[in-house]
Amino acid sequence: MNTTQLKQAVCQANLDLVAHGLVTLTWGNVSGLSDDRQVFAIKPSGVPYADLRPEHCVLVSVETGQVVEGDLKPSSDTATHRLLYQAFAGVGGVTHTHSAKATAFAQARREIPCYGTTHADHFFGSIPVTRPLTEEEINADYEGNTGHVIIERFSGIDPVAMPGVLVGSHAPFAWGKDAAQSVKNAVALEAVAAMAIDTLALNPGTPPVDDFLLQKHYSRKHGPNAYYGQK
Amino acid sequence: MNTTQLKQAVCQANLDLVAHGLVTLTWGNVSGLSDDRQVFAIKPSGVPYADLRPEHCVLVSVETGQVVEGDLKPSSDTATHRLLYQAFAGVGGVTHTHSAKATAFAQARREIPCYGTTHADHFFGSIPVTRPLTEEEINADYEGNTGHVIIERFSGIDPVAMPGVLVGSHAPFAWGKDAAQSVKNAVALEAVAAMAIDTLALNPGTPPVDDFLLQKHYSRKHGPNAYYGQK
Amino acid sequence: MNTTQLKQAVCQANLDLVAHGLVTLTWGNVSGLSDDRQVFAIKPSGVPYADLRPEHCVLVSVETGQVVEGDLKPSSDTATHRLLYQAFAGVGGVTHTHSAKATAFAQARREIPCYGTTHADHFFGSIPVTRPLTEEEINADYEGNTGHVIIERFSGIDPVAMPGVLVGSHAPFAWGKDAAQSVKNAVALEAVAAMAIDTLALNPGTPPVDDFLLQKHYSRKHGPNAYYGQK
Amino acid sequence: MNTTQLKQAVCQANLDLVAHGLVTLTWGNVSGLSDDRQVFAIKPSGVPYADLRPEHCVLVSVETGQVVEGDLKPSSDTATHRLLYQAFAGVGGVTHTHSAKATAFAQARREIPCYGTTHADHFFGSIPVTRPLTEEEINADYEGNTGHVIIERFSGIDPVAMPGVLVGSHAPFAWGKDAAQSVKNAVALEAVAAMAIDTLALNPGTPPVDDFLLQKHYSRKHGPNAYYGQK
Repeated sequence: MNTTQLKQAVCQANLDLVAHGLVTLTWGNVSGLSDDRQVFAIKPSGVPYADLRPEHCVLVSVETGQVVEGDLKPSSDTATHRLLYQAFAGVGGVTHTHSAKATAFAQARREIPCYGTTHADHFFGSIPVTRPLTEEEINADYEGNTGHVIIERFSGIDPVAMPGVLVGSHAPFAWGKDAAQSVKNAVALEAVAAMAIDTLALNPGTPPVDDFLLQKHYSRKHGPNAYYGQK
Repeated sequence: MNTTQLKQAVCQANLDLVAHGLVTLTWGNVSGLSDDRQVFAIKPSGVPYADLRPEHCVLVSVETGQVVEGDLKPSSDTATHRLLYQAFAGVGGVTHTHSAKATAFAQARREIPCYGTTHADHFFGSIPVTRPLTEEEINADYEGNTGHVIIERFSGIDPVAMPGVLVGSHAPFAWGKDAAQSVKNAVALEAVAAMAIDTLALNPGTPPVDDFLLQKHYSRKHGPNAYYGQK
Repeated sequence: MNTTQLKQAVCQANLDLVAHGLVTLTWGNVSGLSDDRQVFAIKPSGVPYADLRPEHCVLVSVETGQVVEGDLKPSSDTATHRLLYQAFAGVGGVTHTHSAKATAFAQARREIPCYGTTHADHFFGSIPVTRPLTEEEINADYEGNTGHVIIERFSGIDPVAMPGVLVGSHAPFAWGKDAAQSVKNAVALEAVAAMAIDTLALNPGTPPVDDFLLQKHYSRKHGPNAYYGQK
Repeated sequence: MNTTQLKQAVCQANLDLVAHGLVTLTWGNVSGLSDDRQVFAIKPSGVPYADLRPEHCVLVSVETGQVVEGDLKPSSDTATHRLLYQAFAGVGGVTHTHSAKATAFAQARREIPCYGTTHADHFFGSIPVTRPLTEEEINADYEGNTGHVIIERFSGIDPVAMPGVLVGSHAPFAWGKDAAQSVKNAVALEAVAAMAIDTLALNPGTPPVDDFLLQKHYSRKHGPNAYYGQK
């Protein structure tokens, strides 16, 4: 995929966010990484989705964080995306939204336990929530430090098996092998959050699923023994 | 109905799932049985609904579970559908979704009591929830055993009068005389679940409806004395 | 308005129910009364909204309850509509739905207190809930007795100032001066119910609005001193 | 912007309310102020959104409250809009809705604490709720007094940094530099209210965000050091 194709894929992924009902106003952005992991394309900051075209997407260097192509300013969350690409091998797309139900969990500072197979199909265990940023972290390099607390929280967690996180008092990030897959995981995260809110209302003591059910469902869709889909 | 017509009906029923807002991404599948109950047509695994055409639907033998026609892999839930057709006389269509509110009940492992006439019009009593599968059942033949725990739970329950179930920690299945009717029952199940969540929030001690009201409403739409609709 | 125009208005009112998101499958019906209050037009039973045309609407005699024009069976709720026209002077349209939030109140058997001006603009006080029907009432003339318990509940209540009710364990009915107005009141009832559920979750002890606020808002839109709208 | 352009902008802002799902029936209105702050254009009272055209919008004098151009009656809430323009320097657009979740907070008479960055991006602190109006205030000049209790509540609060309010037992008002921005703030208010309801359900003791996070997010989008968007 060349950078023109990458910008087209990233533009489409951003528009898919809207189609899936995950964004209000301009609250959301998707990026996608080049095959050589040198640059990523990302939504420009504050541009209405109705006006978004592939050539608006901005190319940013993974190494330096500098814009390497594009006339518009990249998303204000660009530094967070960049750090995730640096830290998470196997991740080639990142989605940030303020989707309503996942954001409620982030605000309540509760992780989302795995209450069922919908969750297990996409996230291998409880979806974690980061610690709050300190005053110093917020004032020095806010978006970079948002990336750092995510990476800190993923110490010992495989980001490929757990393709999403709740940033405490903020909102979710999701990721995947490319931009399109990161959007699908953002959709799944929101759906799982919505179901979990109702599940907890119906039974506050709902136990997480058994480990063997989690293992089974995740491996139906992921890894060498996957048998879901056409491949 | 020949198998070409059956595949058209099953394709349409799968698309109706989307129109009714019951599916997110590719989480859902509908099948329909041939008139001689020898084969059923089912959605292929993981194909986006936007791309789905009748010729993609796969014909599977009820007796052997083998694909008898079609180039794509059938839904990963095919074994569950097959067992329901074998066990439930009078059932000619099966719908599986992860619709949000019904799945919340499944995750909370609570049955849905009959709180009103909306429920009574479609489901004759509490909508049951299955027991969790054991580790052995999950690892040996997961989708088949999902069918078995449904059938086990329906010991003493008429599946024609109770056309749906909540698989614990998983999601709902619904069924009916054909694919289209199974979708309608899946729609009703989701609507009834949504109303029940709010009903319980308003009055945690809401009693189920009186037996005579349940009987009356169900028989308005079903059985020899039905007087709802044009027939 | 002649009967052809009446059937057109009633058909349109039924379609408006769908546009307002108040109906699932075929769960809902609207009727409208002729100017001389002799006949009413009503949706046929169980016909999908997508297929509904004005000539499908059935004309029923208010006095006898018999069909006087139309090839299809009228709604199974026809007897309820008829009794409301007989009992409630000033009512010329009736809407029945199973809209989700109002039905939750009906199932929980709780009236909806007036928590704000949205409610006060349409309903002059708490929206009442009927008592459950007895076994005898259900088995003898179910739909007629549904009308009777509504009328019984409205002893001392002006149906023009309180254009809706919750039938316990069933669902809402709303009414108005004509079919279109009854749909608007059904829309308002559902919106008010949704807000009340969230209001109670946020503050279970929310007091109803002061009587003078109720009086003010209702009279802004209704009665000789109304000043809302263009008339 | 001349008054023809102003009416076009206000008409569009009213239609945007519908596109954002903030209005039911005709419950909502947007106004916009002329550049010289002498007149404002506002939606006519009770006109269905589907029929609304720019020439329907009514021009009203800020000083006298009298209609200076237009054939229709202005919104019944015109007096409230007028007082806000008089009292709030820097405000050039006002939106009033009965959006569901914000109205639930207004009815429950609870302010909306800042639980996350979605809120902090738009509202600098807790969104306040007004006191109830007295009987005298309601009977004498209801809509004017609605403006007065808002202004009273904003004693010591900068309306530019807090572009919205919940009128107790009524519904939200939002504002901004122009009509379009007031609609965006009404959208944000509703989204923030929806998230807060779920946040409180998940964790009734959720703390508001740290002051430094509030400061950071608000200043990302507002003021001399803003760096969100393309300007």
